[in-house]
Amino acid sequence: MSSSSLVNQLIEALRCLPGVGPKSAQRMAYYLLERDRHGAENLSAVLDRAVKEVGHCEQCRSLSEQTVCDICLSSNRDRSILCIVESPADVLIIEQSTDFQGVYFVLMGHLSPLDGIGPEEIGLGLLASRLDQGEVREVVLATNFTVEGEATAHYISEMVHSRNLTASRIAHGVPVGGELEYVNSSTLSRAFSSRQNF
Amino acid sequence: MSSSSLVNQLIEALRCLPGVGPKSAQRMAYYLLERDRHGAENLSAVLDRAVKEVGHCEQCRSLSEQTVCDICLSSNRDRSILCIVESPADVLIIEQSTDFQGVYFVLMGHLSPLDGIGPEEIGLGLLASRLDQGEVREVVLATNFTVEGEATAHYISEMVHSRNLTASRIAHGVPVGGELEYVNSSTLSRAFSSRQNF
Repeated sequence: MSSSSLVNQLIEALRCLPGVGPKSAQRMAYYLLERDRHGAENLSAVLDRAVKEVGHCEQCRSLSEQTVCDICLSSNRDRSILCIVESPADVLIIEQSTDFQGVYFVLMGHLSPLDGIGPEEIGLGLLASRLDQGEVREVVLATNFTVEGEATAHYISEMVHSRNLTASRIAHGVPVGGELEYVNSSTLSRAFSSRQNF
Repeated sequence: MSSSSLVNQLIEALRCLPGVGPKSAQRMAYYLLERDRHGAENLSAVLDRAVKEVGHCEQCRSLSEQTVCDICLSSNRDRSILCIVESPADVLIIEQSTDFQGVYFVLMGHLSPLDGIGPEEIGLGLLASRLDQGEVREVVLATNFTVEGEATAHYISEMVHSRNLTASRIAHGVPVGGELEYVNSSTLSRAFSSRQNF
């Protein structure tokens, strides 16, 4: 081989990143070693800390290095409106795009019986006891508009209705079959403001 | 903000990677924390070691964690043919694509007077003393076919000719204006075999 084994190990290690194939990994490795060792050092340190310290918020299950995340702790949020999303990235994009002032519950996935992912795996036990506490009035279903996302939304809406609470689904401004993460801000914002009973 | 500061720090840190914008960095951070913490841990460790241990080969200036790299140390290489390239990535792609059996000299850039990059910055002093040692018979110029790469090749060919040695340039199978790193293997291989006096 032309190149030292440590460089090759780095190229291999970079392939854990989503969307990074052998060619990009090579390019990244050489770029970091030739031109941005400071950035590489920082990335290594932050990555290490994040892997060790970032866990899940006790209340909403989102990623957080604290026991309870900033949104769940905030006194400015309306705790009677609970928005259900599939992943922490969805929380981020909703915060960036809309003026939603409620709180979140992050499933960390969606129902997928064939893969062995049932209600317990996506935290619906925790959600049920949250709904039973009586603080939540409306549940906004913001799962993806995929088959699994829709099925998950339906399943949760039944949990909500059986407790005589309101369930709403964000509007179909989001393209059918699409994932929240890729929608532009104004579409997602409109989808939030025109949410309907579900 | 919706997300813990450590997650945001990670998103920011990932942007040191070439071609990674805010959206990809976000996606990478969440992917690593949600689905591949093992890969992330490994990446952090390898990156840290690489930044600390990978330096430059004393003979060819390529990236290596040893004082002299494997290719320069190898007894199977023909030390009378010296291939000049701009970057360590070019060495890797030539090794993968061609049956070149000589050794390399890596400029770690190209002549660019406007940016203050002159002969000394790209190691031409070291190259001159290498040529003066008398071991090298032919110099293969494999710098990029860009304006700077061509100018660098010309400059080096004059150093070579003044010592009554042979200089050759890899053939114009490489698209004009292109960079070695992006050429497919067979084109690059043909470019090596049909190299001509320069």
